[in-house]
Amino acid sequence: MGRITIADIARRAGVSTAAVSYALNGRPGVSAATREQVLAIAAELGWEPSSAARSLSGSHTETIGLVLARAPETLGFESFYMQFVAGIESVLSERDYGLLLQVAPDIDAEMRTYRKWRAARRVDGIVMVDPRVSDPRLDLFLGADALPAVVVGDPSLSGGLTSVYTDDAAAMRSCVEYLAGLGHTAIGHVTGTPEFGHTHLRGEAFASEAAARSMTTAVRHADFTPDAGAAATRDLLARGDVTAIVYDSDAMALAGLGAAHEAGVRVPADVSLVAWDDSPLCRAAYPQLTALSHDVASYGAHVARRLFERMAGEPPASYRDSTPELVVRGSTVPPPPAR
Amino acid sequence: MGRITIADIARRAGVSTAAVSYALNGRPGVSAATREQVLAIAAELGWEPSSAARSLSGSHTETIGLVLARAPETLGFESFYMQFVAGIESVLSERDYGLLLQVAPDIDAEMRTYRKWRAARRVDGIVMVDPRVSDPRLDLFLGADALPAVVVGDPSLSGGLTSVYTDDAAAMRSCVEYLAGLGHTAIGHVTGTPEFGHTHLRGEAFASEAAARSMTTAVRHADFTPDAGAAATRDLLARGDVTAIVYDSDAMALAGLGAAHEAGVRVPADVSLVAWDDSPLCRAAYPQLTALSHDVASYGAHVARRLFERMAGEPPASYRDSTPELVVRGSTVPPPPAR
Repeated sequence: MGRITIADIARRAGVSTAAVSYALNGRPGVSAATREQVLAIAAELGWEPSSAARSLSGSHTETIGLVLARAPETLGFESFYMQFVAGIESVLSERDYGLLLQVAPDIDAEMRTYRKWRAARRVDGIVMVDPRVSDPRLDLFLGADALPAVVVGDPSLSGGLTSVYTDDAAAMRSCVEYLAGLGHTAIGHVTGTPEFGHTHLRGEAFASEAAARSMTTAVRHADFTPDAGAAATRDLLARGDVTAIVYDSDAMALAGLGAAHEAGVRVPADVSLVAWDDSPLCRAAYPQLTALSHDVASYGAHVARRLFERMAGEPPASYRDSTPELVVRGSTVPPPPAR
Repeated sequence: MGRITIADIARRAGVSTAAVSYALNGRPGVSAATREQVLAIAAELGWEPSSAARSLSGSHTETIGLVLARAPETLGFESFYMQFVAGIESVLSERDYGLLLQVAPDIDAEMRTYRKWRAARRVDGIVMVDPRVSDPRLDLFLGADALPAVVVGDPSLSGGLTSVYTDDAAAMRSCVEYLAGLGHTAIGHVTGTPEFGHTHLRGEAFASEAAARSMTTAVRHADFTPDAGAAATRDLLARGDVTAIVYDSDAMALAGLGAAHEAGVRVPADVSLVAWDDSPLCRAAYPQLTALSHDVASYGAHVARRLFERMAGEPPASYRDSTPELVVRGSTVPPPPAR
């Protein structure tokens, strides 16, 4: 038998070709029973729509998908994602697209969601965030039939897929250089989740830039929660030598400020603090927090625009977004005189 | 790997596509053993009937919709919505539903989105937040053809639709009572967006409970942004008589703490602060903030459950969620001795 046509299915089902077309294209006009029968026969005969036919029939979902593999309770104080989502939405709304958002407990659940969305044709494309080293999710977006995707992260982590990224290493180097310029010689880094690729890249830049300047470093791995940020801060302050601390998020830096106050350590006189991702809370704190500032909403909008290009057939490519810029406020000064 | 087809399952199971179709559709014609094997393989491969097919079979989209009519830049520090969304997601994921999220600049854009979603059958139901006094959105959810909706807010604001609400008036009264018990006689209130119904209800409770206790009150309307919260705090502190301030959000309270520090006003010795909606940042601040604490994720989950009941045909009703509870921490003490 040659290529299976709608007429073949109609003949077998004993219905009109129009009814078959309605059933296969998910349009109203046929009963549930007829639809089921048509789909069963189509499957049995091995019918496959051509991709041209598929795009002609208007099988676009006008929806893009985003999965956040974070524990629900950690999302409430993450200024990053809500701003990022708002930026994505600013582009989607221009095109009448919606955002299908799923919070998943872990990366396995995230992958199940992608499979489900693809199988059920729920979305036209995917924004994938928090790429890891050797990320198992990337395989789902390779191959001719895969969903178009944009990875939000460094090209070295994106497996050849389209990526939009910030140069976190350059931002971290500028921060270490700034602290060295103030005269700090022993600096701490409170990191985000170690499995995330950008945590890794920032950590490498922190270590290499500090080593090049013969600075002493102390690293404490945390997980973006305020509690972990506060605990890591107490731990670094207890060393007695660290005079400046860089945080991988603003929420952890705010928690570090609280922990320092509580321990009777003055900010910035005794210890300087630098936040990453600059939310309005960094400016509302006292002292106001010096931060690696980045327009996160604009980053989200950039990602969305690249995804539309990818969905329109553009080949994969990497795009650098603006590099987070050090905004100096009241939480960083030269170190106290050596005791 | 591309879209999983019935043929893929048949190949893996070593049976005909017809047998797979029978098994997946719960029809006779295959043995129980084959049926089990097919279902196991389908689950393993992540097979899903397409949403187009499903939407014909029962006109379900397996999606619910949420529009946030907030300026994108205000979402980043709002712990409430991300936690609320995470709570909704916890219920949706159990039922394989997705959340279609739209950020709209204003209430008119929000209403256009609802109309579009209904016309295009994009969602099975709606969660409507931030009801206002005489809210024009409610009309869209009345009538036989309207989408099922749950209003997140007081029954007095929900126009007879299903509502899930917290008793904000009771929570505010408990807070004023607590401050009176500490000996405060002049208290301030930094409110959220005045147009929101819950701002109105909290404001009324604040005024009436303080009046009943012959307390002096000062109210400053803000809009949930840290900047507005800080400005309102400076303004209240400049009066010279206010010894305690209640905020309508945690972000504004944190900004108030920063503003007090900056002005050289000690918290809590000179002024006591109370936050609303208790994020981890309230515990990470120094002093830790006393707050009207509410499990926002659980609130979101409750709303989602009621929406499923409504979509299943339950008549409209109002459901009270747990009342925000005053959690006393380090930011509230008796007022300083009269000068």
